[in-house]
Amino acid sequence: MTPVLTIAGSDSSGGAGIQADLKTFTVHGCYGASVITALTAQNTAGVQAVYGVPPDFVKQQMNSVLDDIGVKAIKTGMLFDTENTKAVAQILKGHFDTKGHIPLVCDPVCVSTSGHALLHPDAVDTIIDELFPLSDLITPNKAEAELLLKQRDFPSRIANLQDMINAARRLRTLGPQAVLLKGGHCVVSLRELANISSDDTQVIRDDLLDENSNILRIHGRKEQHVDSLVVDVLCTSDNHITIFVRTKLQSTSTHGTGCTLSAALACQLARGTPLSEAVRLAAAYTHIGIETAIPIGSGFGPLNHNHSITPRLVPPRTKTNPYPLTSSLLRSSRMIWKEYVQHEFVVLLGKGTLPKENFLHFIKQDYHYLKYYARAYALLAAKSHAYAPISAAIDVVFSIVQESSMHMGYCAEWGITEDELINTSESPALTAYGAFLIDTGMQGDSMKLVVALAACLLGYGEIGLWLKEEAQAPDSWVQWEGNPYLKWMEDYSGDIYQKAVKAGLETLESRAAADAPSLVRFADWQDVWERCTRLEKGFWDMAIDEPRSLNSRLLSYVASSS
Amino acid sequence: MTPVLTIAGSDSSGGAGIQADLKTFTVHGCYGASVITALTAQNTAGVQAVYGVPPDFVKQQMNSVLDDIGVKAIKTGMLFDTENTKAVAQILKGHFDTKGHIPLVCDPVCVSTSGHALLHPDAVDTIIDELFPLSDLITPNKAEAELLLKQRDFPSRIANLQDMINAARRLRTLGPQAVLLKGGHCVVSLRELANISSDDTQVIRDDLLDENSNILRIHGRKEQHVDSLVVDVLCTSDNHITIFVRTKLQSTSTHGTGCTLSAALACQLARGTPLSEAVRLAAAYTHIGIETAIPIGSGFGPLNHNHSITPRLVPPRTKTNPYPLTSSLLRSSRMIWKEYVQHEFVVLLGKGTLPKENFLHFIKQDYHYLKYYARAYALLAAKSHAYAPISAAIDVVFSIVQESSMHMGYCAEWGITEDELINTSESPALTAYGAFLIDTGMQGDSMKLVVALAACLLGYGEIGLWLKEEAQAPDSWVQWEGNPYLKWMEDYSGDIYQKAVKAGLETLESRAAADAPSLVRFADWQDVWERCTRLEKGFWDMAIDEPRSLNSRLLSYVASSS
Repeated sequence: MTPVLTIAGSDSSGGAGIQADLKTFTVHGCYGASVITALTAQNTAGVQAVYGVPPDFVKQQMNSVLDDIGVKAIKTGMLFDTENTKAVAQILKGHFDTKGHIPLVCDPVCVSTSGHALLHPDAVDTIIDELFPLSDLITPNKAEAELLLKQRDFPSRIANLQDMINAARRLRTLGPQAVLLKGGHCVVSLRELANISSDDTQVIRDDLLDENSNILRIHGRKEQHVDSLVVDVLCTSDNHITIFVRTKLQSTSTHGTGCTLSAALACQLARGTPLSEAVRLAAAYTHIGIETAIPIGSGFGPLNHNHSITPRLVPPRTKTNPYPLTSSLLRSSRMIWKEYVQHEFVVLLGKGTLPKENFLHFIKQDYHYLKYYARAYALLAAKSHAYAPISAAIDVVFSIVQESSMHMGYCAEWGITEDELINTSESPALTAYGAFLIDTGMQGDSMKLVVALAACLLGYGEIGLWLKEEAQAPDSWVQWEGNPYLKWMEDYSGDIYQKAVKAGLETLESRAAADAPSLVRFADWQDVWERCTRLEKGFWDMAIDEPRSLNSRLLSYVASSS
Repeated sequence: MTPVLTIAGSDSSGGAGIQADLKTFTVHGCYGASVITALTAQNTAGVQAVYGVPPDFVKQQMNSVLDDIGVKAIKTGMLFDTENTKAVAQILKGHFDTKGHIPLVCDPVCVSTSGHALLHPDAVDTIIDELFPLSDLITPNKAEAELLLKQRDFPSRIANLQDMINAARRLRTLGPQAVLLKGGHCVVSLRELANISSDDTQVIRDDLLDENSNILRIHGRKEQHVDSLVVDVLCTSDNHITIFVRTKLQSTSTHGTGCTLSAALACQLARGTPLSEAVRLAAAYTHIGIETAIPIGSGFGPLNHNHSITPRLVPPRTKTNPYPLTSSLLRSSRMIWKEYVQHEFVVLLGKGTLPKENFLHFIKQDYHYLKYYARAYALLAAKSHAYAPISAAIDVVFSIVQESSMHMGYCAEWGITEDELINTSESPALTAYGAFLIDTGMQGDSMKLVVALAACLLGYGEIGLWLKEEAQAPDSWVQWEGNPYLKWMEDYSGDIYQKAVKAGLETLESRAAADAPSLVRFADWQDVWERCTRLEKGFWDMAIDEPRSLNSRLLSYVASSS
C-alpha cells in the first residue's frame, strides 16, 4: 500500500479530479491521499459550477498529509488559480528541501474534456515558473502544450508527429525533467512513424504487433485500423524521444482521461518503475479504461477504472479467521455438511446403540475405500512439483497402508476374517466416492484434489471432536465408557488423527492464500467439496440401509420358504 | 459498475470521508460519485482544520450528480452543520419525490475517531427531523446513539447488550426504516448472548463457529478470544432484532471505520442484497479491513480497503487487443519466441537452401512427435467437462491421425520408406518435448495443457505467415516458387492450418477471459509457454545439428579407415 498524494480539484460526478485519481490509486494497490484545490459541480455533460478552496486551506491540507503520511509520489491536477498554484508550489518546495525529493507528476490541467476552463489564465506562468522546476514529468495534451509554448513565445502549432517531437523538446526547456506530450487527438500515419526513426528516437508499439506476431495481427484483423494510430511522445532528461503508438479509439467515455493517466504514472513512479515502462503501463491502463467503459451519464462518460482488478473470493487469513477457505466451504454446503457429520449412523454410534451389522458393513467397505484414498494421495504426489508436497502426500499413503493391517486386526476382533474382508464386493456408494476422488485427481490440478480429499479428512475429525465434546456434557446422550465403538471414537477424536486434521487445514489454507482462486476456480472447489460431502453422507446411508434391506430380503426369503 | 453516491466530508489523509467511501465503492465494483459538504485538513493524528462548503454549492453538486448519473444508492456521512444538513435533506426529498426512492444509508457522523466534533450540535435535530424519515438505515455508534437518544429525552445510557437492543428499537421510532447500532466499543459475553435469545431475536456469528465447526474452533485456538466479543445490533422495520457477533480486534487502524461500513452497506443495498445479509457482508469487509491494515501515519491509521480485490493479470479482451493472453505470453518470452519462429532452419527452408538431410531428419522426428501431440489432445479431451471441448480436442486427434498417413506419403516422395519412418528412433529433443506435453497434461488442469499445446500450433502458424509475407516483398530472400519445401510453406501458411491457429487463439483467449488467472497461475502458464517455446527451438536445433554431427562422425570414420 504505497502512499500516493493527489493535489487537484474535486469532480462531484466521480469521473475526473481527485475521484479519478483515488480510484486509480486504489486499483493500482496504492494508498491514496488527496488535497482539494477546488470543488466542481460537474457531470458528464459539463461543469456547472466551480468553487475555489482558499489557498491557506490548501496549505493546511498539504501539511496535514505531508507531515504524517509517508507519501512516495505526488501528482498535481487542476490547481484553479495563481494563488493556489503558488501555495502548492511553496509547500512542495519546502517539503522537498527538508525531506528530500519524491517523484512529482504535474498534469497542467487548463481545460476540461467538455471545454470548461479549469485554470485562470494568469496562473499559467506560475505553473511554468514554480511547479515545472520541481516536476519529474509534465503531461500536457495538445491544447495545453500549445498554450504553454505560446505563453513563452515558442512556435506553438502542433499538427503532426514532427511538431509533437519538437514541442516535447521545447517544453522540457521550461523546467521539468521530462515531458509526456499526449497525442490522443492527433492521428498519425505509419509513413510518418517510419520517417521519424533516428538514433535518439525509439518507437514502442504497446500491442506488440511489430515483430513476430503476424498471427495476432492477421487473425485479429487489425489491418483495418492501421491508419488510425495515435501517439504519446516522451522526451526525457537526455533529450531522448520515445514514441508510444497505439490504435485510436472511437469513444465518448473519455471524461477524466488525463487525470487517470497522470494518477497511474504517479503510482508507477512511486514504486520505482523506470519512466519509459511507467508510461507504457499507465497509457495501457488508461487505454483499456476507455475501451472497456460502460456508458454512465448523458455526455462524455467516465473510464472504467476497475478493469485491472478482480474480486478476491477467499478472504485473507487473519488471526480471528485463520481458516477462511474452510469456513467458506462449510458455509456454502452448510446443510449437507450437517447431514454428514451428524448422520444417524454417527448418532447411533455415539449412543452405543448402532447395530453391529451396520458397523461391520461400514468397516468392511471402509477397508476398500481406503485403497482409493491411498491411491488418490499417491496421485497427488505424482501431480506435485516440489519435494515437500510429494513427501507430505506419500506420508499419508504410507500411513493408510500401515493402518490397513491394523484395520484387519480390528476387523478380526469383530469376527471378520481376512478372506471375508478382502473378498467383500464394493457397494456402489463406495465405488462412486472412491472413483470420484481418482477422477477429480485426473481432471484437475493438485489443489482440486486437495479439496476433494479434505471432506473425508476434516469430516471424520469434526465427528470425533463433536462426539467427544458432547460426551463431556452432564447427562450426555453420548455413551463414552463402555461404548462398543469406543475405540473408533477415541481414534478420530485423538491426538494423532487431529494432528492430521490440523495439517490438512494448513495445506488447504496456505495453498488458497498463496494462490487466491478466481470466481470460476472457487466455484469448482465448492462443487467438489459439496459432492464429496454428499458422497460421505451416501457412505453412511449405505452403512445404515444396506444391512436393513439385506435383512428384509432374508426375512422375505424365510417367509416365502416357510 | 452500479453508481453509488456519497454525501460527506473530505478527509485529506484519505482514510475516512468521501475518500474511504470512494475506495470502498471501487473495490466493491461500484461506480462512486461524491458530494462534498466540508473539507478537512486531517491526518491519522487528528483533525487540524475544517472548512464548510456553502449550502448552495452542496446543492449544486447534488443536482449535477442526481440529474445525470443513475445513482442506485446513497450514503450520507459528515454533514457539517444545520444548513448543509437541510440542503442535503431538501434535495434528496425532491429527488425521491420526482424520481422514486432509492436506498439511503445515513451515518449520523458527529465525532471523529480522534475525538474531533464533526457536526454542529444544533444540526442533530435537523438530521433526526429531516434525514431520518428518508433513510432506509441509520448506522450510529454508541456515542452517536446516546447523543441522538438524549436529544429526544429517551434513556440514553448504553452499557450492555440489552441496552443496545433497547436503544436500537428506540432509535427506529425516530423515523428511519432500520437501525444498525454499532457496538465496536462494547464487549459482550457469551452469557449475555445466551440470555438474549427470543423469538424476535436472531444471533449471527459471521465466523460460523457456532455449528458443526469444532475443527475450526479448536485448531484455530479461538477459545482464548471467547470473551472478547463485540456485536452490532440491527433493528428492522418489523422491530425484529439481529445481533451480529464477531471477535473484538485490538488495533489502532480504525480511522474511517464508520465511513467504510456505511459505504459498503450502500454498495450492497444498491445491488439489492437483503438488509441482514448486507450488514453481514459489510461488517465482514470492514472487520477484515481493520485486521489486515498496514500501519500508515503516526496515529489512528486507515483500514486496508484493498483486501477484497486482486490484480487482474491478463487484460480484458477488447476490439484493439482481442488476444491479450497470447500477447502477454509472447511479450514474456519475446527473445526465445523469436529464436524459435525465425530459427536458422526456418530461414534456410524459406531460402530453399536447407540441406535435404536436415529436412528429412526433421520430418522423420516430426512423425513421432505428432503421436505425442495426438495423445496430449486425447488427454485434454479426457480432462474436459463438457461435450464441446471434448469434441474439439478429439477433432484435433482425428486430424493428426489422418495427417499421419499423408505424412507417410509425403515422406515417400522424399524416398523414406514406411519401415524407415516407423523404425526411426526418437531423438532426445523430441522425447523431451513430447513427454513434457504429456507430463504437463497429467500434472495440471486442462487450461495448463491448452497453453502447452499452443506453442506448437501458434508457432508453426507464425512461421507460415512470416515466410509468406516475406516472400511477397520485392527481391525477397524467400524463394517461394520452385522452393523444394514449397508444400511445407503452403501447408502452414494456408487456410486450413490458419483456421486451426485462429481456433486455438480463440480457445486460449476465451478460457483466460472466462477464468482470469491469479498471479501464480499466470506465472505457471508463462513458464509452460516458455518451456514449450524452448523445446520447439530445441527441435529445430536437433534438425540442424544431428545430421551435421552424423556427417562429421562419418567423415572421421572414413578418415580413420583410409
